[in-house]
Amino acid sequence: MNIAFIGLGNMGLPMAINLVKAGHAVTGFDLAKSQADALVAAGGKVAASAVAAAAGAEVVITMLPASRHVEAVYLGSSGLIAAASPKTLLIDCSTIAPEVARKVSSISAEHKVAMIDAPVSGGTAGAQGATLTFMVGGKTEHVNRARPLLEKMGKNIFHAGDSGAGQTVKVCNNMLLGILMIGTAEALRLGMANGMDPKVLSEIMSKSSGRNWALELYNPCPGVMENTPASRNYSGGFGVDLMLKDLGLAVENALGVSASVPLGSLARNLYDIHSKQGSGTLDFSSIFKLIAARS
Amino acid sequence: MNIAFIGLGNMGLPMAINLVKAGHAVTGFDLAKSQADALVAAGGKVAASAVAAAAGAEVVITMLPASRHVEAVYLGSSGLIAAASPKTLLIDCSTIAPEVARKVSSISAEHKVAMIDAPVSGGTAGAQGATLTFMVGGKTEHVNRARPLLEKMGKNIFHAGDSGAGQTVKVCNNMLLGILMIGTAEALRLGMANGMDPKVLSEIMSKSSGRNWALELYNPCPGVMENTPASRNYSGGFGVDLMLKDLGLAVENALGVSASVPLGSLARNLYDIHSKQGSGTLDFSSIFKLIAARS
Amino acid sequence: MNIAFIGLGNMGLPMAINLVKAGHAVTGFDLAKSQADALVAAGGKVAASAVAAAAGAEVVITMLPASRHVEAVYLGSSGLIAAASPKTLLIDCSTIAPEVARKVSSISAEHKVAMIDAPVSGGTAGAQGATLTFMVGGKTEHVNRARPLLEKMGKNIFHAGDSGAGQTVKVCNNMLLGILMIGTAEALRLGMANGMDPKVLSEIMSKSSGRNWALELYNPCPGVMENTPASRNYSGGFGVDLMLKDLGLAVENALGVSASVPLGSLARNLYDIHSKQGSGTLDFSSIFKLIAARS
Amino acid sequence: MNIAFIGLGNMGLPMAINLVKAGHAVTGFDLAKSQADALVAAGGKVAASAVAAAAGAEVVITMLPASRHVEAVYLGSSGLIAAASPKTLLIDCSTIAPEVARKVSSISAEHKVAMIDAPVSGGTAGAQGATLTFMVGGKTEHVNRARPLLEKMGKNIFHAGDSGAGQTVKVCNNMLLGILMIGTAEALRLGMANGMDPKVLSEIMSKSSGRNWALELYNPCPGVMENTPASRNYSGGFGVDLMLKDLGLAVENALGVSASVPLGSLARNLYDIHSKQGSGTLDFSSIFKLIAARS
Repeated sequence: MNIAFIGLGNMGLPMAINLVKAGHAVTGFDLAKSQADALVAAGGKVAASAVAAAAGAEVVITMLPASRHVEAVYLGSSGLIAAASPKTLLIDCSTIAPEVARKVSSISAEHKVAMIDAPVSGGTAGAQGATLTFMVGGKTEHVNRARPLLEKMGKNIFHAGDSGAGQTVKVCNNMLLGILMIGTAEALRLGMANGMDPKVLSEIMSKSSGRNWALELYNPCPGVMENTPASRNYSGGFGVDLMLKDLGLAVENALGVSASVPLGSLARNLYDIHSKQGSGTLDFSSIFKLIAARS
Repeated sequence: MNIAFIGLGNMGLPMAINLVKAGHAVTGFDLAKSQADALVAAGGKVAASAVAAAAGAEVVITMLPASRHVEAVYLGSSGLIAAASPKTLLIDCSTIAPEVARKVSSISAEHKVAMIDAPVSGGTAGAQGATLTFMVGGKTEHVNRARPLLEKMGKNIFHAGDSGAGQTVKVCNNMLLGILMIGTAEALRLGMANGMDPKVLSEIMSKSSGRNWALELYNPCPGVMENTPASRNYSGGFGVDLMLKDLGLAVENALGVSASVPLGSLARNLYDIHSKQGSGTLDFSSIFKLIAARS
Repeated sequence: MNIAFIGLGNMGLPMAINLVKAGHAVTGFDLAKSQADALVAAGGKVAASAVAAAAGAEVVITMLPASRHVEAVYLGSSGLIAAASPKTLLIDCSTIAPEVARKVSSISAEHKVAMIDAPVSGGTAGAQGATLTFMVGGKTEHVNRARPLLEKMGKNIFHAGDSGAGQTVKVCNNMLLGILMIGTAEALRLGMANGMDPKVLSEIMSKSSGRNWALELYNPCPGVMENTPASRNYSGGFGVDLMLKDLGLAVENALGVSASVPLGSLARNLYDIHSKQGSGTLDFSSIFKLIAARS
Repeated sequence: MNIAFIGLGNMGLPMAINLVKAGHAVTGFDLAKSQADALVAAGGKVAASAVAAAAGAEVVITMLPASRHVEAVYLGSSGLIAAASPKTLLIDCSTIAPEVARKVSSISAEHKVAMIDAPVSGGTAGAQGATLTFMVGGKTEHVNRARPLLEKMGKNIFHAGDSGAGQTVKVCNNMLLGILMIGTAEALRLGMANGMDPKVLSEIMSKSSGRNWALELYNPCPGVMENTPASRNYSGGFGVDLMLKDLGLAVENALGVSASVPLGSLARNLYDIHSKQGSGTLDFSSIFKLIAARS
């Protein structure tokens, strides 16, 4: 199948390469030549622009940094929607504001072009190992059409609802994740300040009602679990600035739809303070350092 | 075995009855005569005071409302510690401040009386069904001595560490639980305000990094899960005022040991506001109503 | 002077009437005919559209509900900027996002049309009594040109800086005001829960380091001060939903410029919860009711 | 008049010296010999214990670090209350928990000994310059008896109500002050992130509804005001750890009297984080550094 892949960054490039490996003809585009070159080296082709990459493609996939890039690439007279044929399927894998996803897909629908939003979780490791989770919004027929391709790049494909629902799930889940991580850090620090062994405390809470993903699989206290970012100086993993971006999307979205998010807002501000202290590129479990012990 | 059981409330009475059922000779005491009568009806005996109940008992179990009651019953020249023989094992199952638990057990140790703290989770249903979880602090030999009795009243027995560690785990776990519940409520409300089906959102987050005990087993949105308090108008379960008490213990403890608990403190204040609006006796998942939708 | 006045709502109408009273020829426009009629009754004229009202006007003043209305009225080929002559001075008195104010005035500058942002505080009473405070952003020469007109509608004219600075000051000030109000409510409730007379407490704090505008001039506790909304069931004054809007602008702005606003964000969420409980039209000092006493 | 002064720290010593200067016979006691020596050098006497200092004194003044010291010095068979004669007036100037103040003065009343609580604000500069503010709780006759002495040490004497009311006002006022300071820091940082001059922003807000003590007299942004701690690297003034102690008292008190203090609790946690990062001895306006700009 002819596939266009727009946005060959740390996530997009390995995703595009996985499609090449699966036997698809992938034409990529990225502003950074080195990234485009890497796709060619893996057996893909490159084009001089997003629209040029999309010419003749049955499916166009985008993986872009933020809402404004998605609007720039899709909308307007020289955007992907205007250039698409009625047979094209547009798949936006970027993590953006749900309201922007709804707007872009609504314009796409006016042009009779099929579009779904399909943000991912799983990080660069998931992109490379084709083990990403896709949270997908759009019509069932379009999602089903995309599914075989998404399965080449990921392991779990969740159909969340109509257009924008993929972004909504991503935003809700990651806001909750930010809260789980800080809450877990607070509980561990509180126990340790009482003299508790954080390993014992983690084990008991993992079998009790404090159980959550951050505590069980991604413990923020160094030494409690092997193979977590916390046990390698918070390197690797999901960065503070990415969590901060997602919490920002959640708070912005809450303003737009008039939702109350007191813990989510506080989590965003704590991550903002943490990032400004120079921890932006550390793993997000490093918030354990901001919730510090008295020395 | 001769057992004294002080405090026959909604939790203590069924716990004591489970010990009677297991063949033990249980002498109880409670200020409320009707509660004491219920123990007699179940085959136990009653005494006129805590110390009278404890006379001749090998094990004394207490289940009291708060720190001040534990201090009143255990300490002083007419308290349980002064009255205990060197062979008595004292087991405090109340949920109280870790610092008070450490203080009382330290005084007990000065008197050469064995004592452990063993707060529970699982609510009245767990007390009746003997499926409570015990979080235990104290010396290993004392915990092992208590274990056969605790297993008559509960399912999981966690030895958390030295004296006070049981209370510490309880406080940390329940603070985290309060945060999980509010965070889950916020995430669900945010998704719903974007038009998402809360059932679909819950399913996807339960398989993603937002996964946590409140979301999976105790979903706060009515209709998402059967057999949860949320699906029966927030009746039954673990009450708002009990969660508020536990969050108060956590915040007070954090002040004492100099810990930062920003989300835990905010959770306490939100539950306080919720309680004052008349929801104190509802299940704690009813915080979903405070984190309301725009009507 | 020929003046166009777009947006004749609760604020805009009395402002426009004050300009009529000062001898100016005011042509208004509003989507609501009754509001336009009221201007005519006061000696003004009405036009069929914003652009029609602006035709021939030396100064065009807008008073609109939100950012999107300002963008709709000013921008595009049929907007006020495109229709303006190089001699026109545009004055936007709406309270909107600073980034939108900067964007609109930047487009205006590209068209060589003078524009300033001049949001107000003082409420409907200030608009009627011509005692508004104007916070103005723009070039000094444009601000000086506007000043004589603004003085017909208000008492204090602050030149805050370049374009957008008026909106920035408004957003910062009102975020701080929301924090002052909740903080004052908390301090008074805490004192009262200790048995203090809120009047005595207010008097002492007003002479101490807790002194602030909300405490001294707008006390949220009923009975402490006469002639405050608190002493007339929180009627009149500055509504909860207006404060909620301004806190939303502050939080949104903070996301855009990457600022930490932990108390501001929490204030927004508390006002959001308060509004959803049916208090949207009460005065914003009614947050004292959310920060309730235990009954 | 014969006066005993217990607790000759950074605050107590200059207060005692001011009483010596006013012609009183002051006998002091402090665990630190150097402090006691300094009182002697200034014309006072020292005693070997608190009770020895109080022997024969008409008025006993205490200035101690925390609740537990006050309980230790006043209560018990060897405490000040037991040793006091019915003619003695006890004045506790320490800043402690209102509930402890109420308890101690209640025990004093049982012994028919007059006692008032009279915590101060104004810092070491106020203690040295005799410009302290006293917030006093107790019976009017006792307060009036103390007034001439308090006026030798301070400028403003506020009678807040019955026993404990002095502590209550102190706790409420300082919680509010902590909120004012962080809120002001947030507003200034938000403005600056939008390009505003913090001096202009401060001036306008000081004339608007954002007006408050921290903004006007103690601006946390370096360079905005001369002679503030912010303009001398946050040295001098009221330390972070003192504010943290007072916010801790407020939160603890709120737990005890069942009050909601969401902003107060968040302020406590932000100051706790700030202190743990090594800023404990800086002036409390240095929270402006935690609410940082993106570099």
